[in-house]
Amino acid sequence: MQLGISMNKPLIGIIMGSDSDLPTMQGAIAICEEFDIPCEVAIVSAHRTPDRMVEYAKVAHERGIKVIIAGAGGAAHLPGMVASLTPLPVIGVPVATRNLQGVDSLYSIVQMPAGIPVATVAIGNAKNAGLLAVQILASHQSELLAKVQQYRQNLAQSVLDKQARLDE
Amino acid sequence: MQLGISMNKPLIGIIMGSDSDLPTMQGAIAICEEFDIPCEVAIVSAHRTPDRMVEYAKVAHERGIKVIIAGAGGAAHLPGMVASLTPLPVIGVPVATRNLQGVDSLYSIVQMPAGIPVATVAIGNAKNAGLLAVQILASHQSELLAKVQQYRQNLAQSVLDKQARLDE
Amino acid sequence: MQLGISMNKPLIGIIMGSDSDLPTMQGAIAICEEFDIPCEVAIVSAHRTPDRMVEYAKVAHERGIKVIIAGAGGAAHLPGMVASLTPLPVIGVPVATRNLQGVDSLYSIVQMPAGIPVATVAIGNAKNAGLLAVQILASHQSELLAKVQQYRQNLAQSVLDKQARLDE
Amino acid sequence: MQLGISMNKPLIGIIMGSDSDLPTMQGAIAICEEFDIPCEVAIVSAHRTPDRMVEYAKVAHERGIKVIIAGAGGAAHLPGMVASLTPLPVIGVPVATRNLQGVDSLYSIVQMPAGIPVATVAIGNAKNAGLLAVQILASHQSELLAKVQQYRQNLAQSVLDKQARLDE
Amino acid sequence: MQLGISMNKPLIGIIMGSDSDLPTMQGAIAICEEFDIPCEVAIVSAHRTPDRMVEYAKVAHERGIKVIIAGAGGAAHLPGMVASLTPLPVIGVPVATRNLQGVDSLYSIVQMPAGIPVATVAIGNAKNAGLLAVQILASHQSELLAKVQQYRQNLAQSVLDKQARLDE
Amino acid sequence: MQLGISMNKPLIGIIMGSDSDLPTMQGAIAICEEFDIPCEVAIVSAHRTPDRMVEYAKVAHERGIKVIIAGAGGAAHLPGMVASLTPLPVIGVPVATRNLQGVDSLYSIVQMPAGIPVATVAIGNAKNAGLLAVQILASHQSELLAKVQQYRQNLAQSVLDKQARLDE
Amino acid sequence: MQLGISMNKPLIGIIMGSDSDLPTMQGAIAICEEFDIPCEVAIVSAHRTPDRMVEYAKVAHERGIKVIIAGAGGAAHLPGMVASLTPLPVIGVPVATRNLQGVDSLYSIVQMPAGIPVATVAIGNAKNAGLLAVQILASHQSELLAKVQQYRQNLAQSVLDKQARLDE
Amino acid sequence: MQLGISMNKPLIGIIMGSDSDLPTMQGAIAICEEFDIPCEVAIVSAHRTPDRMVEYAKVAHERGIKVIIAGAGGAAHLPGMVASLTPLPVIGVPVATRNLQGVDSLYSIVQMPAGIPVATVAIGNAKNAGLLAVQILASHQSELLAKVQQYRQNLAQSVLDKQARLDE
Repeated sequence: MQLGISMNKPLIGIIMGSDSDLPTMQGAIAICEEFDIPCEVAIVSAHRTPDRMVEYAKVAHERGIKVIIAGAGGAAHLPGMVASLTPLPVIGVPVATRNLQGVDSLYSIVQMPAGIPVATVAIGNAKNAGLLAVQILASHQSELLAKVQQYRQNLAQSVLDKQARLDE
Repeated sequence: MQLGISMNKPLIGIIMGSDSDLPTMQGAIAICEEFDIPCEVAIVSAHRTPDRMVEYAKVAHERGIKVIIAGAGGAAHLPGMVASLTPLPVIGVPVATRNLQGVDSLYSIVQMPAGIPVATVAIGNAKNAGLLAVQILASHQSELLAKVQQYRQNLAQSVLDKQARLDE
Repeated sequence: MQLGISMNKPLIGIIMGSDSDLPTMQGAIAICEEFDIPCEVAIVSAHRTPDRMVEYAKVAHERGIKVIIAGAGGAAHLPGMVASLTPLPVIGVPVATRNLQGVDSLYSIVQMPAGIPVATVAIGNAKNAGLLAVQILASHQSELLAKVQQYRQNLAQSVLDKQARLDE
Repeated sequence: MQLGISMNKPLIGIIMGSDSDLPTMQGAIAICEEFDIPCEVAIVSAHRTPDRMVEYAKVAHERGIKVIIAGAGGAAHLPGMVASLTPLPVIGVPVATRNLQGVDSLYSIVQMPAGIPVATVAIGNAKNAGLLAVQILASHQSELLAKVQQYRQNLAQSVLDKQARLDE
Repeated sequence: MQLGISMNKPLIGIIMGSDSDLPTMQGAIAICEEFDIPCEVAIVSAHRTPDRMVEYAKVAHERGIKVIIAGAGGAAHLPGMVASLTPLPVIGVPVATRNLQGVDSLYSIVQMPAGIPVATVAIGNAKNAGLLAVQILASHQSELLAKVQQYRQNLAQSVLDKQARLDE
Repeated sequence: MQLGISMNKPLIGIIMGSDSDLPTMQGAIAICEEFDIPCEVAIVSAHRTPDRMVEYAKVAHERGIKVIIAGAGGAAHLPGMVASLTPLPVIGVPVATRNLQGVDSLYSIVQMPAGIPVATVAIGNAKNAGLLAVQILASHQSELLAKVQQYRQNLAQSVLDKQARLDE
Repeated sequence: MQLGISMNKPLIGIIMGSDSDLPTMQGAIAICEEFDIPCEVAIVSAHRTPDRMVEYAKVAHERGIKVIIAGAGGAAHLPGMVASLTPLPVIGVPVATRNLQGVDSLYSIVQMPAGIPVATVAIGNAKNAGLLAVQILASHQSELLAKVQQYRQNLAQSVLDKQARLDE
Repeated sequence: MQLGISMNKPLIGIIMGSDSDLPTMQGAIAICEEFDIPCEVAIVSAHRTPDRMVEYAKVAHERGIKVIIAGAGGAAHLPGMVASLTPLPVIGVPVATRNLQGVDSLYSIVQMPAGIPVATVAIGNAKNAGLLAVQILASHQSELLAKVQQYRQNLAQSVLDKQARLDE
């Protein structure tokens, strides 16, 4: 199976149903780069390439992947189906849709039945999917945990900087 | 693969993710019986038995199935995933859910992406799924079409009977 | 009755309430053309031309039509009313609306009472309505079924092509 | 055509798709009785008896009916279809539904396209449909208008009575 | 009290909370003009000019007004409050809003308690409010009823004309 | 005007459209009693007793009332209309409704236009309306502010007590 | 702690999670200026600067603040968390969001549990938050109350002016 | 700080705002027991015990906790606030609510701003929160990963058992 922008020994798999989801999913890729976590990016459509999806999901953990991030819109089946086929934690990104603004995507991803969870983030918020994946990796790596804490301090500082500009 | 209440040469496959969906799906079974269409009933879970689902969907048309009816609730992936794996028409029944009353099921089933349609009926209305399956078969069988027309006349008569009782 | 772009011996009737729905409904027409299925296109308004709608629906199956695709928006009564007047399978396309984004159209089309189903597709997704009509015809025509399977393989290939471009 | 509890020279037609809607619609019948307006009650289903509906709607004004009240639930087409077939004002009562609580009924009734209005009242509020019909008749009858004003004074008095009981 | 574009002996009062609602409400004014029904137009805000609203509503029927059309958006109290102060039929037009697209307006207008109905039309559809007002007047005027029937025939013809253009 | 359970020199006015809202509104009365704030309780219906509502709202501040709490359900106009007639802060309690669960009440109360705010609390949460009224009074009374702080400490202690019971 | 545009002895604290909320919150600032109430403006993020938020909320009443206005969007925790940490009345402004149009913000702000109220205004309506804060201050200051009444009269006059322009 | 049912060296912290959430959260506790993962259970209310919440969240990772599961209903701030105070992954369980059925809880938990993710599961589905926590731990423990795979096989077998019973 041909997979996407695959760095050596990727730890995070970032998949989506169509390249039209790529602008949304860039937020997750950027976080992996910012935290120096090797990731791979693949177009895997639950509905157009179901066999490819099954194969991707079944062997991901054997290839060393630790977390899968899956983005999808509308009847967004990719995250849940991948979750049913892998023992790895799967993070779902509901992609915004034209008519229902992503409420359909959100419900299709988050309302999984007992037994098969998908860790769902906000509509369109792939950046948070990336951060969640990093935090999952970090819960067993003290160095990475320190990086997460530093990231948070930078967030806080950015608020103080905005206040300072406001006070000028 | 072990399949459900399978009559000889079933034409309609009625599948659902759990036996808890069976009370809802009885409406479809009853219609098949009323129109004397052989059907089979199977528990096929997209999330708990993905391999069984793939196998069921891929060979259904080779076994003589003409239409598949799939019921599911919540993040209801079964109808759409089966639709992606079979060239047959797939009818989706959104099963009502405790908290979101089946709006989650409806969105997960009806909002399929371009390329893979699911013929969606009303929330919880498996009877209509059965009738739709019969009408699909009937569009090429004049005898069955006549039965559908007779069924409609009976519906109309039931209204007139209610009026008569009201007028008494 | 004057009907629309009618090819010889149309098998699929594509109707809509207004020519303002035509851009949405083009997706269904394009699929008929792609699969070489003769279709006809007609403006039939449930509310402005109820008599024309009744006449259209009642005789469609006698004229050789096998499936009717009906698009409508807002209080979208056309698909359900036509379904109540024909024994043929009717596919409903909820057309997106300005204020309620097509949720009104979806509810008006999908929530049909027991006895009269409408096969509902995603909001604005007339392409899938066309495909569903083709699949209904194909369930009894092995040659057409093979075409549907080929169409699916093309969909899958388009995903692999996107992956290849991503990997460059 | 056999019509319902028809008093001599009915002015208000109260119709509904099924006798299961009768408990909801009793509120409208009670108001007609309270204001001594002759009314008729009929089961007229848009989907199960479309021909009967067309006939009912087309001749209602010739039979002396001045206002039509139509109740329906789910894909509630009866009020809008009747409105498209009569020049009379049509009042729609969205009947509450099990899963969508009548939001589907409300959208199907109120979101009529330009040209064909339906005067929609609150979900399940047939009493208000009856009052609206009375007010429509009263706008040209000063005696009836006075009765409406008396009814309003009684409503106000009932509030004061409740206050008095609260103060005891 | 200073009232709006008041023609001699207006029969229909068209009111709204703000001149920003005027573009929406023009549809109702245009219908009055098309049917030659004298109307008046007034800015009457339930929240900014409650006294003016009370005065307007209380005496409207004494000034010869037969129907009141009230448009409002958001927490849209104008139609319901006017309805509570007049025995005349009141038609409510839910004006579309920026964030909730008029769902707030619709609920605020249609969900009136038992005793005080508001005849609600579709979100933003003031044209239908005008037509409903005309139909209310017409139910007692055979000449106006004939005009409504002619209007309907023109609607039907416009559909046939569109079909003809499509067939060219 | 006859008003409700009026203690000497009430500071908080608690009003509602019907005595059926009283069970919901008891939460606000209980808080007034707990904080020893004199309050009055009145049935004031925007739709059935509009004149009484206008009178109540216009003179409330002259009678010494400092805050008005208004509960209403459905097309809940009471809080907003009272707010438009008084310079006092008005707190709105959306009362839960049968079909729309209070979403209609919430939208009718919270979505007020610029110029006339209503301080809205959670659906059915009259207790919080009472607390908010107390906090408004307390913002200028240090003794009452201390009572609010003590109330908060009691809330915190109740959590610790639950933890203790859980740990046993 | 560095705080925002702080005038001497601010009575109203206006806070928001990000400077991107500032355009929305300007409406509140403008009202403070119009009524000559000293206010302060601060960027305080519940999620990025939780410690700063705790500190701000805990001491606000000791610094002389009488009312806090907090604006937030999405999972809008700022108003409710600040309310849990201060005995002062807190007014919440749900900021509109891209996908859910502020319904998420509204629910996150208004649906507070018993014990900790947030006075919620309409989505995006910071102007009303400012007015509500002024009314809270005014309920104990007769001079300010008179200003509120004058503001209301100006609102009413603006309606009459619009009517006059309409009548020209 | 007094914490809940704390086993030696807990790896998963399960917290909730009130003991009324305990029946919902039992699903997560049961999974920890089934997989033999030491966990602790604590009542930590964002609104009633904000200081306790801050302390809990800040030191959780120092006490050896690897994942936090937080359940909350309504304006459900607990998961998001804890997430803002810890570098650990936080899983949010939207608890069903009386009026809005947990849609308020879902939006308050899932719609977090960029920077602070919450891994959200289905409304009321604490069992899945437990499974997700186990999968997070398992992504670095091959033995636990094998247990997850065994759990999945049991799920699949339970479907086949249901089929067998259906076939009898």
